[in-house]
Amino acid sequence: MRLIDHRTDLEVMDRRACLGLLGSHRVGRVAVVSGGRPLIFPVNYVMDDGTVLFRTDPGTKLSGAHSQYYMSFEIDGIDEHSHEGWSVVVNGVGREVVEPNELARVQALPLMPWSPGDKQHWIRIRPETVTGRRITRRG
Amino acid sequence: MRLIDHRTDLEVMDRRACLGLLGSHRVGRVAVVSGGRPLIFPVNYVMDDGTVLFRTDPGTKLSGAHSQYYMSFEIDGIDEHSHEGWSVVVNGVGREVVEPNELARVQALPLMPWSPGDKQHWIRIRPETVTGRRITRRG
Repeated sequence: MRLIDHRTDLEVMDRRACLGLLGSHRVGRVAVVSGGRPLIFPVNYVMDDGTVLFRTDPGTKLSGAHSQYYMSFEIDGIDEHSHEGWSVVVNGVGREVVEPNELARVQALPLMPWSPGDKQHWIRIRPETVTGRRITRRG
Repeated sequence: MRLIDHRTDLEVMDRRACLGLLGSHRVGRVAVVSGGRPLIFPVNYVMDDGTVLFRTDPGTKLSGAHSQYYMSFEIDGIDEHSHEGWSVVVNGVGREVVEPNELARVQALPLMPWSPGDKQHWIRIRPETVTGRRITRRG
């Protein structure tokens, strides 16, 4: 059965479908609030027990043992020509991984940083909501 | 000559290259601040005289004659396997297009909404900054 959001005419994906897509992709975009403004940037990521992990440079505002920020994370697969596609959005709080045992474990995860810089800090987003939409082709 | 950001080892694209990529793509992601939190969503867009135009549903917080919001807009082309790619980010203020002549003109632009809903409201982001990065393959 398909669940359709009649306001947007998009098919609503259930959480399981969203987590499946999150687990099978590697590139997304993170949005944070900085100085009252939204700021968006692409990241490589990996899923870890239902959370989103990505790496960031030392010295950025995101890193720090006591820092935590609301984050919105998005992945999508949209065909610019056929106008078909899907998107998954994760909203939650992101915190740097600082506990030594936890850090050792995540450093062994298969995550290449998106850029070749010194991205030694790991940020974990714990989802509060996971939502997904798929464009349906209807008459 | 290539300009390299030595903090990230990414190649910095100049504004002309960024505008070229913005002009040749159709799908991006917008981030806004809502209730103090970041919120990200995919949009189809079209460039119009150096500004970003996208459509939104009536009744969303973005529409309204007197509404204006800081927005961060991103497009990218990243190969998940080769780890090569680029991204362009536009930061600026988004406002709904409400002036009748201007609205008539933008409604004639080639912009299909990303989803099939009733997206009769047009939002224009006037860039304050346009930045782009490309992953360089170095030794």
